[in-house]
Amino acid sequence: MLRTSFDMEVPFYDVDAYRIVWHGNYPKYFEVARCQLLEAIGYPYEKMEQSGYFFPVIDLHTRYVKPIVFKQKIQVSAMLRDWENKLVIDYVIIDLDTGQRLTKGRTQQVAVLMPDNITQFQSPPELIQHIEAALRNTTEQG
Amino acid sequence: MLRTSFDMEVPFYDVDAYRIVWHGNYPKYFEVARCQLLEAIGYPYEKMEQSGYFFPVIDLHTRYVKPIVFKQKIQVSAMLRDWENKLVIDYVIIDLDTGQRLTKGRTQQVAVLMPDNITQFQSPPELIQHIEAALRNTTEQG
Amino acid sequence: MLRTSFDMEVPFYDVDAYRIVWHGNYPKYFEVARCQLLEAIGYPYEKMEQSGYFFPVIDLHTRYVKPIVFKQKIQVSAMLRDWENKLVIDYVIIDLDTGQRLTKGRTQQVAVLMPDNITQFQSPPELIQHIEAALRNTTEQG
Amino acid sequence: MLRTSFDMEVPFYDVDAYRIVWHGNYPKYFEVARCQLLEAIGYPYEKMEQSGYFFPVIDLHTRYVKPIVFKQKIQVSAMLRDWENKLVIDYVIIDLDTGQRLTKGRTQQVAVLMPDNITQFQSPPELIQHIEAALRNTTEQG
Repeated sequence: MLRTSFDMEVPFYDVDAYRIVWHGNYPKYFEVARCQLLEAIGYPYEKMEQSGYFFPVIDLHTRYVKPIVFKQKIQVSAMLRDWENKLVIDYVIIDLDTGQRLTKGRTQQVAVLMPDNITQFQSPPELIQHIEAALRNTTEQG
Repeated sequence: MLRTSFDMEVPFYDVDAYRIVWHGNYPKYFEVARCQLLEAIGYPYEKMEQSGYFFPVIDLHTRYVKPIVFKQKIQVSAMLRDWENKLVIDYVIIDLDTGQRLTKGRTQQVAVLMPDNITQFQSPPELIQHIEAALRNTTEQG
Repeated sequence: MLRTSFDMEVPFYDVDAYRIVWHGNYPKYFEVARCQLLEAIGYPYEKMEQSGYFFPVIDLHTRYVKPIVFKQKIQVSAMLRDWENKLVIDYVIIDLDTGQRLTKGRTQQVAVLMPDNITQFQSPPELIQHIEAALRNTTEQG
Repeated sequence: MLRTSFDMEVPFYDVDAYRIVWHGNYPKYFEVARCQLLEAIGYPYEKMEQSGYFFPVIDLHTRYVKPIVFKQKIQVSAMLRDWENKLVIDYVIIDLDTGQRLTKGRTQQVAVLMPDNITQFQSPPELIQHIEAALRNTTEQG
Protein backbone atom coordinates (compact mmCIF):
# COMPACT_ATOMS: atom_id res chain seq x y z
CA MET A 1 0.00 0.00 0.00
CA LEU A 2 1.23 3.49 -0.81
CA ARG A 3 1.52 5.58 2.35
CA THR A 4 3.30 8.75 3.50
CA SER A 5 3.49 10.50 6.87
CA PHE A 6 4.70 13.76 8.35
CA ASP A 7 5.10 15.03 11.90
CA MET A 8 3.93 18.42 13.12
CA GLU A 9 3.34 20.46 16.26
CA VAL A 10 -0.08 22.11 16.52
CA PRO A 11 0.21 25.90 16.05
CA PHE A 12 -1.65 28.42 18.24
CA TYR A 13 -3.78 29.71 15.36
CA ASP A 14 -5.40 26.29 14.79
CA VAL A 15 -6.88 26.14 18.29
CA ASP A 16 -10.37 27.45 19.15
CA ALA A 17 -12.01 28.98 22.22
CA TYR A 18 -12.18 25.52 23.83
CA ARG A 19 -8.42 25.23 23.37
CA ILE A 20 -8.66 22.27 21.01
CA VAL A 21 -7.93 22.22 17.27
CA TRP A 22 -11.02 23.66 15.57
CA HIS A 23 -12.63 20.81 13.59
CA GLY A 24 -12.50 22.84 10.37
CA ASN A 25 -8.70 22.96 10.44
CA TYR A 26 -8.19 19.24 9.84
CA PRO A 27 -8.62 19.49 6.04
CA LYS A 28 -5.32 21.43 6.05
CA TYR A 29 -3.49 18.58 7.76
CA PHE A 30 -5.01 16.04 5.38
CA GLU A 31 -4.09 18.17 2.37
CA VAL A 32 -0.42 18.37 3.33
CA ALA A 33 -0.38 14.57 3.73
CA ARG A 34 -2.22 14.11 0.43
CA CYS A 35 0.19 16.38 -1.46
CA GLN A 36 3.13 14.42 -0.07
CA LEU A 37 1.52 11.13 -1.12
CA LEU A 38 0.91 12.45 -4.65
CA GLU A 39 4.51 13.67 -4.72
CA ALA A 40 5.67 10.16 -3.75
CA ILE A 41 3.52 8.74 -6.55
CA GLY A 42 5.15 11.21 -8.96
CA TYR A 43 1.85 12.86 -9.92
CA PRO A 44 1.48 16.04 -7.84
CA TYR A 45 -0.99 18.89 -8.59
CA GLU A 46 1.33 20.63 -11.11
CA LYS A 47 1.77 17.40 -13.14
CA MET A 48 -1.99 16.83 -13.04
CA GLU A 49 -2.37 20.26 -14.59
CA GLN A 50 0.30 19.59 -17.21
CA SER A 51 -1.63 16.50 -18.28
CA GLY A 52 -4.83 18.59 -18.52
CA TYR A 53 -6.64 17.71 -15.29
CA PHE A 54 -7.35 18.92 -11.83
CA PHE A 55 -8.76 16.70 -9.10
CA PRO A 56 -11.27 18.52 -6.88
CA VAL A 57 -12.27 16.92 -3.59
CA ILE A 58 -15.87 15.73 -4.02
CA ASP A 59 -16.30 14.03 -0.65
CA LEU A 60 -14.67 14.45 2.76
CA HIS A 61 -15.40 12.46 5.88
CA THR A 62 -13.67 13.08 9.20
CA ARG A 63 -14.05 11.18 12.48
CA TYR A 64 -12.70 13.15 15.44
CA VAL A 65 -11.82 10.41 17.93
CA LYS A 66 -9.87 12.48 20.48
CA PRO A 67 -9.38 16.26 20.67
CA ILE A 68 -5.95 17.68 19.77
CA VAL A 69 -4.44 20.58 21.73
CA PHE A 70 -1.99 23.47 21.23
CA LYS A 71 1.62 22.26 20.87
CA GLN A 72 0.60 18.59 20.73
CA LYS A 73 3.02 16.63 18.57
CA ILE A 74 1.13 14.58 16.01
CA GLN A 75 1.80 12.38 12.99
CA VAL A 76 -0.48 12.67 9.96
CA SER A 77 -0.54 9.80 7.44
CA ALA A 78 -2.15 9.44 4.02
CA MET A 79 -2.86 6.01 2.49
CA LEU A 80 -3.96 5.34 -1.08
CA ARG A 81 -7.18 3.29 -1.08
CA ASP A 82 -8.64 3.38 -4.58
CA TRP A 83 -7.87 5.04 -7.92
CA GLU A 84 -9.76 3.38 -10.76
CA ASN A 85 -12.76 5.70 -10.95
CA LYS A 86 -12.08 8.05 -8.10
CA LEU A 87 -8.92 8.86 -6.17
CA VAL A 88 -9.70 7.71 -2.63
CA ILE A 89 -7.24 8.49 0.16
CA ASP A 90 -7.50 7.59 3.85
CA TYR A 91 -5.93 9.61 6.64
CA VAL A 92 -5.04 8.89 10.22
CA ILE A 93 -3.64 11.23 12.87
CA ILE A 94 -1.85 9.77 15.90
CA ASP A 95 -0.24 11.30 18.97
CA LEU A 96 3.51 11.12 18.42
CA ASP A 97 4.33 10.28 22.04
CA THR A 98 1.68 7.67 22.82
CA GLY A 99 0.80 6.38 19.35
CA GLN A 100 -2.88 6.82 20.25
CA ARG A 101 -5.16 7.31 17.26
CA LEU A 102 -6.76 10.78 17.35
CA THR A 103 -8.50 11.23 13.98
CA LYS A 104 -9.55 9.27 10.91
CA GLY A 105 -10.46 10.76 7.54
CA ARG A 106 -11.17 9.98 3.91
CA THR A 107 -11.24 12.12 0.78
CA GLN A 108 -12.60 11.28 -2.64
CA GLN A 109 -11.38 13.19 -5.68
CA VAL A 110 -12.42 12.96 -9.28
CA ALA A 111 -10.53 14.01 -12.41
CA VAL A 112 -11.88 17.06 -14.23
CA LEU A 113 -10.60 17.77 -17.76
CA MET A 114 -9.67 21.42 -18.31
CA PRO A 115 -10.46 23.93 -19.70
CA ASP A 116 -14.07 22.82 -20.20
CA ASN A 117 -14.30 21.22 -16.74
CA ILE A 118 -15.64 17.84 -17.87
CA THR A 119 -15.87 15.37 -15.00
CA GLN A 120 -14.20 12.03 -15.84
CA PHE A 121 -15.93 8.85 -14.74
CA GLN A 122 -12.72 6.86 -15.07
CA SER A 123 -9.36 8.01 -13.78
CA PRO A 124 -7.04 9.31 -16.54
CA PRO A 125 -4.27 6.91 -17.71
CA GLU A 126 -1.59 9.30 -16.38
CA LEU A 127 -2.80 8.78 -12.81
CA ILE A 128 -3.09 5.01 -13.17
CA GLN A 129 0.35 4.64 -14.75
CA HIS A 130 2.02 6.67 -12.01
CA ILE A 131 0.30 4.66 -9.29
CA GLU A 132 1.11 1.30 -10.88
CA ALA A 133 4.76 2.29 -11.25
CA ALA A 134 4.87 3.45 -7.62
CA LEU A 135 3.29 0.17 -6.47
CA ARG A 136 5.88 -1.83 -8.44
CA ASN A 137 8.69 0.18 -6.82
CA THR A 138 7.22 -0.41 -3.37
CA THR A 139 6.89 -4.14 -3.97
CA GLU A 140 10.40 -4.46 -5.32
CA GLN A 141 11.87 -2.51 -2.46
CA GLY A 142 9.84 -4.48 0.09
CA MET B 1 -38.42 20.12 11.51
CA LEU B 2 -36.20 22.86 12.92
CA ARG B 3 -34.35 24.66 10.14
CA THR B 4 -32.53 27.98 9.65
CA SER B 5 -30.88 29.54 6.59
CA PHE B 6 -28.67 32.48 5.72
CA ASP B 7 -27.53 34.00 2.43
CA MET B 8 -23.94 34.97 1.65
CA GLU B 9 -21.67 36.00 -1.20
CA VAL B 10 -18.43 34.01 -1.49
CA PRO B 11 -15.43 36.17 -0.44
CA PHE B 12 -12.15 36.24 -2.37
CA TYR B 13 -10.13 34.69 0.48
CA ASP B 14 -12.21 31.47 0.40
CA VAL B 15 -11.26 30.65 -3.20
CA ASP B 16 -8.22 28.52 -4.13
CA ALA B 17 -5.80 28.42 -7.07
CA TYR B 18 -8.48 26.70 -9.18
CA ARG B 19 -10.79 29.64 -8.46
CA ILE B 20 -13.33 27.55 -6.59
CA VAL B 21 -14.06 27.58 -2.86
CA TRP B 22 -11.36 25.48 -1.22
CA HIS B 23 -13.04 22.35 0.18
CA GLY B 24 -11.67 23.03 3.66
CA ASN B 25 -13.60 26.31 3.93
CA TYR B 26 -17.05 24.72 4.01
CA PRO B 27 -16.91 23.91 7.76
CA LYS B 28 -17.05 27.69 8.31
CA TYR B 29 -20.28 28.02 6.34
CA PHE B 30 -21.81 25.06 8.18
CA GLU B 31 -20.75 26.50 11.53
CA VAL B 32 -22.47 29.83 10.93
CA ALA B 33 -25.65 27.95 9.98
CA ARG B 34 -25.33 25.68 13.02
CA CYS B 35 -24.86 28.60 15.41
CA GLN B 36 -27.97 30.26 13.99
CA LEU B 37 -29.95 27.03 14.39
CA LEU B 38 -28.81 26.68 18.02
CA GLU B 39 -29.73 30.34 18.57
CA ALA B 40 -33.22 29.64 17.19
CA ILE B 41 -33.48 26.67 19.56
CA GLY B 42 -32.48 28.97 22.43
CA TYR B 43 -29.41 26.91 23.36
CA PRO B 44 -26.36 28.56 21.74
CA TYR B 45 -22.70 27.86 22.71
CA GLU B 46 -22.70 30.34 25.63
CA LYS B 47 -25.81 28.74 27.20
CA MET B 48 -24.27 25.29 26.69
CA GLU B 49 -21.31 26.53 28.71
CA GLN B 50 -23.53 28.02 31.42
CA SER B 51 -25.17 24.62 31.84
CA GLY B 52 -21.73 22.99 32.14
CA TYR B 53 -21.23 21.49 28.68
CA PHE B 54 -19.55 22.04 25.39
CA PHE B 55 -20.44 20.10 22.24
CA PRO B 56 -17.38 19.27 20.12
CA VAL B 57 -17.92 18.08 16.56
CA ILE B 58 -17.02 14.38 16.49
CA ASP B 59 -17.96 13.62 12.89
CA LEU B 60 -18.20 15.72 9.72
CA HIS B 61 -19.23 14.52 6.30
CA THR B 62 -19.36 16.81 3.27
CA ARG B 63 -20.48 15.99 -0.26
CA TYR B 64 -19.30 18.59 -2.80
CA VAL B 65 -21.88 18.27 -5.57
CA LYS B 66 -20.97 21.37 -7.63
CA PRO B 67 -18.04 23.77 -7.22
CA ILE B 68 -18.73 27.26 -5.83
CA VAL B 69 -16.94 30.32 -7.20
CA PHE B 70 -15.87 33.82 -6.09
CA LYS B 71 -18.85 36.17 -5.61
CA GLN B 72 -21.40 33.39 -6.10
CA LYS B 73 -24.52 34.08 -4.06
CA ILE B 74 -25.44 31.04 -2.00
CA GLN B 75 -27.89 30.00 0.70
CA VAL B 76 -26.68 27.79 3.55
CA SER B 77 -29.28 25.88 5.59
CA ALA B 78 -29.00 23.83 8.79
CA MET B 79 -31.62 21.23 9.73
CA LEU B 80 -31.89 19.43 13.06
CA ARG B 81 -31.88 15.63 12.48
CA ASP B 82 -31.34 13.94 15.84
CA TRP B 83 -30.62 14.96 19.42
CA GLU B 84 -31.24 12.10 21.83
CA ASN B 85 -27.71 10.75 22.11
CA LYS B 86 -25.86 12.97 19.70
CA LEU B 87 -26.71 16.34 18.18
CA VAL B 88 -26.97 15.59 14.45
CA ILE B 89 -27.39 18.49 12.03
CA ASP B 90 -27.70 18.34 8.24
CA TYR B 91 -26.63 21.13 5.90
CA VAL B 92 -27.40 22.04 2.35
CA ILE B 93 -25.97 24.83 0.20
CA ILE B 94 -27.89 26.01 -2.85
CA ASP B 95 -27.23 28.63 -5.51
CA LEU B 96 -29.44 31.61 -4.71
CA ASP B 97 -30.27 32.40 -8.33
CA THR B 98 -30.97 28.93 -9.71
CA GLY B 99 -31.88 27.00 -6.55
CA GLN B 100 -29.48 24.27 -7.67
CA ARG B 101 -28.08 22.16 -4.83
CA LEU B 102 -24.32 22.62 -4.53
CA THR B 103 -23.29 20.90 -1.29
CA LYS B 104 -24.62 18.54 1.36
CA GLY B 105 -23.17 18.05 4.83
CA ARG B 106 -23.74 16.51 8.23
CA THR B 107 -22.15 17.09 11.63
CA GLN B 108 -22.41 15.01 14.76
CA GLN B 109 -21.71 16.58 18.14
CA VAL B 110 -21.63 15.06 21.57
CA ALA B 111 -22.01 16.74 24.96
CA VAL B 112 -18.87 16.89 27.11
CA LEU B 113 -19.25 17.82 30.79
CA MET B 114 -16.73 20.43 31.94
CA PRO B 115 -14.31 20.86 33.62
CA ASP B 116 -13.36 17.18 33.64
CA ASN B 117 -14.28 16.67 29.98
CA ILE B 118 -16.50 13.62 30.48
CA THR B 119 -18.24 12.55 27.28
CA GLN B 120 -22.00 12.11 27.75
CA PHE B 121 -23.67 9.16 26.05
CA GLN B 122 -27.07 10.79 26.35
CA SER B 123 -27.81 14.39 25.52
CA PRO B 124 -28.17 16.61 28.62
CA PRO B 125 -31.75 17.51 29.63
CA GLU B 126 -31.09 21.22 28.90
CA LEU B 127 -30.58 20.45 25.20
CA ILE B 128 -33.62 18.18 24.97
CA GLN B 129 -35.90 20.66 26.78
CA HIS B 130 -34.87 23.53 24.51
CA ILE B 131 -35.42 21.44 21.38
CA GLU B 132 -38.80 20.13 22.53
CA ALA B 133 -39.96 23.67 23.33
CA ALA B 134 -38.76 24.90 19.94
CA LEU B 135 -40.54 22.02 18.20
CA ARG B 136 -43.79 22.86 20.04
CA ASN B 137 -43.48 26.50 18.97
CA THR B 138 -42.91 25.48 15.37
CA THR B 139 -45.92 23.13 15.41
CA GLU B 140 -48.19 25.69 17.01
CA GLN B 141 -47.13 28.37 14.56
CA GLY B 142 -47.50 25.99 11.61
CA MET C 1 -14.37 60.72 0.11
CA LEU C 2 -15.35 57.27 -1.17
CA ARG C 3 -16.37 55.00 1.70
CA THR C 4 -18.34 51.78 2.19
CA SER C 5 -19.32 49.83 5.30
CA PHE C 6 -20.82 46.50 6.26
CA ASP C 7 -22.06 45.02 9.53
CA MET C 8 -21.19 41.55 10.78
CA GLU C 9 -21.34 39.33 13.83
CA VAL C 10 -18.08 37.64 14.81
CA PRO C 11 -18.22 33.89 14.06
CA PHE C 12 -16.92 31.23 16.47
CA TYR C 13 -14.14 30.09 14.13
CA ASP C 14 -12.46 33.53 14.15
CA VAL C 15 -11.88 33.46 17.91
CA ASP C 16 -8.68 32.08 19.49
CA ALA C 17 -7.82 30.35 22.78
CA TYR C 18 -8.06 33.70 24.60
CA ARG C 19 -11.60 34.06 23.26
CA ILE C 20 -10.82 37.14 21.19
CA VAL C 21 -10.63 37.42 17.40
CA TRP C 22 -7.20 36.08 16.41
CA HIS C 23 -5.20 39.02 15.05
CA GLY C 24 -4.53 37.19 11.78
CA ASN C 25 -8.25 37.09 10.92
CA TYR C 26 -8.64 40.85 10.45
CA PRO C 27 -7.29 40.82 6.84
CA LYS C 28 -10.49 38.91 5.96
CA TYR C 29 -12.71 41.66 7.35
CA PHE C 30 -10.67 44.33 5.57
CA GLU C 31 -10.84 42.39 2.30
CA VAL C 32 -14.62 42.16 2.33
CA ALA C 33 -14.79 45.92 2.96
CA ARG C 34 -12.21 46.57 0.20
CA CYS C 35 -14.09 44.43 -2.33
CA GLN C 36 -17.29 46.34 -1.56
CA LEU C 37 -15.49 49.68 -1.99
CA LEU C 38 -14.05 48.56 -5.35
CA GLU C 39 -17.52 47.39 -6.34
CA ALA C 40 -18.93 50.82 -5.48
CA ILE C 41 -16.16 52.39 -7.59
CA GLY C 42 -17.16 50.09 -10.46
CA TYR C 43 -13.71 48.47 -10.71
CA PRO C 44 -13.81 45.17 -8.79
CA TYR C 45 -11.23 42.36 -9.11
CA GLU C 46 -12.86 40.81 -12.20
CA LYS C 47 -12.83 44.14 -14.08
CA MET C 48 -9.22 44.67 -13.05
CA GLU C 49 -8.46 41.34 -14.67
CA GLN C 50 -10.43 42.19 -17.82
CA SER C 51 -8.31 45.33 -18.20
CA GLY C 52 -5.15 43.22 -17.81
CA TYR C 53 -4.16 43.90 -14.19
CA PHE C 54 -4.29 42.47 -10.75
CA PHE C 55 -3.59 44.51 -7.62
CA PRO C 56 -1.67 42.54 -4.98
CA VAL C 57 -1.48 43.93 -1.45
CA ILE C 58 2.12 45.11 -0.93
CA ASP C 59 1.71 46.61 2.54
CA LEU C 60 -0.69 46.01 5.43
CA HIS C 61 -0.73 47.80 8.74
CA THR C 62 -3.20 46.99 11.51
CA ARG C 63 -3.63 48.68 14.87
CA TYR C 64 -5.63 46.54 17.31
CA VAL C 65 -7.11 49.14 19.67
CA LYS C 66 -9.58 46.93 21.56
CA PRO C 67 -10.08 43.16 21.41
CA ILE C 68 -13.19 41.81 19.63
CA VAL C 69 -15.09 38.83 20.99
CA PHE C 70 -17.34 35.98 19.75
CA LYS C 71 -20.76 37.24 18.61
CA GLN C 72 -19.76 40.91 18.95
CA LYS C 73 -21.60 43.01 16.37
CA ILE C 74 -19.17 45.19 14.48
CA GLN C 75 -19.11 47.58 11.52
CA VAL C 76 -16.18 47.44 9.11
CA SER C 77 -15.55 50.47 6.87
CA ALA C 78 -13.17 51.02 3.95
CA MET C 79 -12.14 54.53 2.84
CA LEU C 80 -10.21 55.39 -0.32
CA ARG C 81 -7.11 57.42 0.59
CA ASP C 82 -4.86 57.55 -2.48
CA TRP C 83 -4.80 56.09 -5.98
CA GLU C 84 -2.30 57.90 -8.19
CA ASN C 85 0.67 55.57 -7.79
CA LYS C 86 -0.67 53.06 -5.33
CA LEU C 87 -4.18 52.15 -4.26
CA VAL C 88 -4.27 53.10 -0.58
CA ILE C 89 -7.33 52.15 1.49
CA ASP C 90 -7.95 52.84 5.18
CA TYR C 91 -10.13 50.67 7.40
CA VAL C 92 -11.85 51.18 10.69
CA ILE C 93 -13.83 48.70 12.79
CA ILE C 94 -16.28 49.98 15.39
CA ASP C 95 -18.58 48.28 17.87
CA LEU C 96 -22.09 48.54 16.47
CA ASP C 97 -23.75 49.14 19.82
CA THR C 98 -21.38 51.68 21.39
CA GLY C 99 -19.72 53.16 18.30
CA GLN C 100 -16.35 52.64 20.01
CA ARG C 101 -13.41 52.32 17.62
CA LEU C 102 -11.87 48.84 17.89
CA THR C 103 -9.37 48.59 15.01
CA LYS C 104 -7.64 50.73 12.40
CA GLY C 105 -5.94 49.43 9.27
CA ARG C 106 -4.39 50.44 5.97
CA THR C 107 -3.56 48.46 2.83
CA GLN C 108 -1.43 49.52 -0.12
CA GLN C 109 -1.88 47.78 -3.47
CA VAL C 110 -0.01 48.21 -6.70
CA ALA C 111 -1.10 47.36 -10.25
CA VAL C 112 0.67 44.41 -11.87
CA LEU C 113 0.28 43.94 -15.63
CA MET C 114 -0.49 40.34 -16.59
CA PRO C 115 0.63 37.91 -17.93
CA ASP C 116 4.25 39.01 -17.48
CA ASN C 117 3.64 40.40 -13.96
CA ILE C 118 5.19 43.82 -14.55
CA THR C 119 4.71 46.13 -11.57
CA GLN C 120 3.27 49.52 -12.58
CA PHE C 121 4.66 52.62 -10.91
CA GLN C 122 1.61 54.65 -11.88
CA SER C 123 -1.95 53.46 -11.50
CA PRO C 124 -3.53 52.34 -14.80
CA PRO C 125 -5.94 54.83 -16.44
CA GLU C 126 -8.86 52.40 -15.93
CA LEU C 127 -8.54 52.67 -12.15
CA ILE C 128 -8.19 56.47 -12.20
CA GLN C 129 -11.15 56.94 -14.54
CA HIS C 130 -13.42 54.78 -12.40
CA ILE C 131 -12.41 56.60 -9.22
CA GLU C 132 -12.85 60.06 -10.77
CA ALA C 133 -16.30 59.12 -12.05
CA ALA C 134 -17.26 57.74 -8.62
CA LEU C 135 -16.02 60.92 -6.94
CA ARG C 136 -18.09 63.08 -9.34
CA ASN C 137 -21.17 60.99 -8.56
CA THR C 138 -20.58 61.33 -4.82
CA THR C 139 -20.14 65.10 -5.09
CA GLU C 140 -23.23 65.52 -7.22
CA GLN C 141 -25.33 63.41 -4.89
CA GLY C 142 -23.95 65.20 -1.82
CA MET D 1 20.33 39.63 19.21
CA LEU D 2 17.87 36.84 19.89
CA ARG D 3 16.73 35.23 16.65
CA THR D 4 15.12 31.96 15.54
CA SER D 5 14.27 30.58 12.09
CA PHE D 6 12.35 27.73 10.53
CA ASP D 7 12.03 26.40 7.00
CA MET D 8 8.75 25.52 5.33
CA GLU D 9 7.21 24.68 1.97
CA VAL D 10 4.13 26.70 1.02
CA PRO D 11 0.97 24.51 1.20
CA PHE D 12 -1.75 24.59 -1.46
CA TYR D 13 -4.37 25.98 0.91
CA ASP D 14 -2.38 29.19 1.52
CA VAL D 15 -2.45 30.21 -2.14
CA ASP D 16 -5.18 32.42 -3.63
CA ALA D 17 -6.84 32.72 -7.06
CA TYR D 18 -3.74 34.55 -8.37
CA ARG D 19 -1.67 31.54 -7.28
CA ILE D 20 0.35 33.50 -4.75
CA VAL D 21 0.17 33.24 -0.95
CA TRP D 22 -2.87 35.27 0.11
CA HIS D 23 -1.59 38.29 2.05
CA GLY D 24 -3.75 37.41 5.06
CA ASN D 25 -1.91 34.11 5.59
CA TYR D 26 1.43 35.66 6.57
CA PRO D 27 0.37 36.24 10.23
CA LYS D 28 0.40 32.43 10.56
CA TYR D 29 4.02 32.20 9.41
CA PHE D 30 5.03 35.04 11.74
CA GLU D 31 3.22 33.40 14.66
CA VAL D 32 5.05 30.09 14.27
CA ALA D 33 8.35 32.01 14.21
CA ARG D 34 7.29 34.11 17.22
CA CYS D 35 6.29 31.04 19.25
CA GLN D 36 9.68 29.46 18.51
CA LEU D 37 11.47 32.63 19.58
CA LEU D 38 9.49 32.77 22.84
CA GLU D 39 10.27 29.09 23.36
CA ALA D 40 14.00 29.83 22.89
CA ILE D 41 13.67 32.65 25.45
CA GLY D 42 12.01 30.19 27.84
CA TYR D 43 8.80 32.21 28.14
CA PRO D 44 6.23 30.69 25.74
CA TYR D 45 2.47 31.36 25.86
CA GLU D 46 1.77 28.72 28.53
CA LYS D 47 4.41 30.20 30.89
CA MET D 48 3.01 33.67 30.25
CA GLU D 49 -0.34 32.34 31.43
CA GLN D 50 1.19 30.65 34.48
CA SER D 51 2.65 34.01 35.49
CA GLY D 52 -0.79 35.64 35.05
CA TYR D 53 -0.45 37.36 31.68
CA PHE D 54 -1.29 37.02 28.05
CA PHE D 55 0.31 39.13 25.33
CA PRO D 56 -2.16 40.11 22.59
CA VAL D 57 -0.79 41.51 19.33
CA ILE D 58 -1.67 45.23 19.31
CA ASP D 59 0.08 46.19 16.07
CA LEU D 60 1.10 44.29 12.94
CA HIS D 61 2.90 45.68 9.94
CA THR D 62 3.77 43.58 6.88
CA ARG D 63 5.69 44.61 3.77
CA TYR D 64 5.16 42.17 0.89
CA VAL D 65 8.33 42.64 -1.17
CA LYS D 66 7.95 39.69 -3.56
CA PRO D 67 5.03 37.27 -4.00
CA ILE D 68 5.41 33.71 -2.70
CA VAL D 69 4.03 30.75 -4.65
CA PHE D 70 2.74 27.19 -4.02
CA LYS D 71 5.53 24.80 -3.00
CA GLN D 72 8.11 27.60 -2.70
CA LYS D 73 10.66 26.77 -0.02
CA ILE D 74 11.03 29.66 2.37
CA GLN D 75 12.77 30.51 5.64
CA VAL D 76 10.89 32.55 8.24
CA SER D 77 12.90 34.32 10.96
CA ALA D 78 11.86 36.19 14.11
CA MET D 79 14.17 38.70 15.80
CA LEU D 80 13.60 40.30 19.21
CA ARG D 81 13.73 44.11 18.87
CA ASP D 82 12.37 45.59 22.09
CA TRP D 83 10.82 44.36 25.33
CA GLU D 84 10.83 47.08 27.99
CA ASN D 85 7.31 48.44 27.50
CA LYS D 86 6.12 46.37 24.59
CA LEU D 87 7.33 43.11 23.11
CA VAL D 88 8.47 44.06 19.61
CA ILE D 89 9.49 41.32 17.18
CA ASP D 90 10.70 41.70 13.59
CA TYR D 91 10.23 39.06 10.92
CA VAL D 92 11.84 38.37 7.59
CA ILE D 93 10.98 35.72 5.01
CA ILE D 94 13.59 34.71 2.43
CA ASP D 95 13.59 32.27 -0.46
CA LEU D 96 15.57 29.23 0.68
CA ASP D 97 17.24 28.65 -2.68
CA THR D 98 18.25 32.19 -3.65
CA GLY D 99 18.35 33.91 -0.26
CA GLN D 100 16.25 36.74 -1.74
CA ARG D 101 14.21 38.68 0.80
CA LEU D 102 10.48 38.22 0.16
CA THR D 103 8.70 39.75 3.17
CA LYS D 104 9.35 41.94 6.19
CA GLY D 105 7.09 42.22 9.23
CA ARG D 106 6.84 43.57 12.76
CA THR D 107 4.48 42.77 15.63
CA GLN D 108 3.97 44.67 18.86
CA GLN D 109 2.50 42.89 21.87
CA VAL D 110 1.59 44.20 25.27
CA ALA D 111 1.16 42.32 28.55
CA VAL D 112 -2.40 42.03 29.86
CA LEU D 113 -2.89 40.90 33.46
CA MET D 114 -5.60 38.24 33.81
CA PRO D 115 -8.35 37.73 34.85
CA ASP D 116 -9.33 41.40 34.86
CA ASN D 117 -7.53 42.13 31.57
CA ILE D 118 -5.53 45.12 32.77
CA THR D 119 -3.09 46.36 30.14
CA GLN D 120 0.44 46.77 31.52
CA PHE D 121 2.45 49.80 30.45
CA GLN D 122 5.69 48.13 31.46
CA SER D 123 6.64 44.58 30.62
CA PRO D 124 6.27 42.19 33.56
CA PRO D 125 9.52 41.20 35.35
CA GLU D 126 9.06 37.55 34.26
CA LEU D 127 9.45 38.54 30.60
CA ILE D 128 12.45 40.79 31.25
CA GLN D 129 14.24 38.20 33.38
CA HIS D 130 13.80 35.48 30.76
CA ILE D 131 15.06 37.75 27.98
CA GLU D 132 18.06 38.95 29.98
CA ALA D 133 19.00 35.37 30.82
CA ALA D 134 18.64 34.36 27.17
CA LEU D 135 20.81 37.31 26.09
CA ARG D 136 23.52 36.34 28.59
CA ASN D 137 23.49 32.77 27.26
CA THR D 138 23.77 34.02 23.69
CA THR D 139 26.68 36.34 24.55
CA GLU D 140 28.52 33.63 26.46
CA GLN D 141 28.06 31.13 23.66
CA GLY D 142 29.03 33.69 21.01
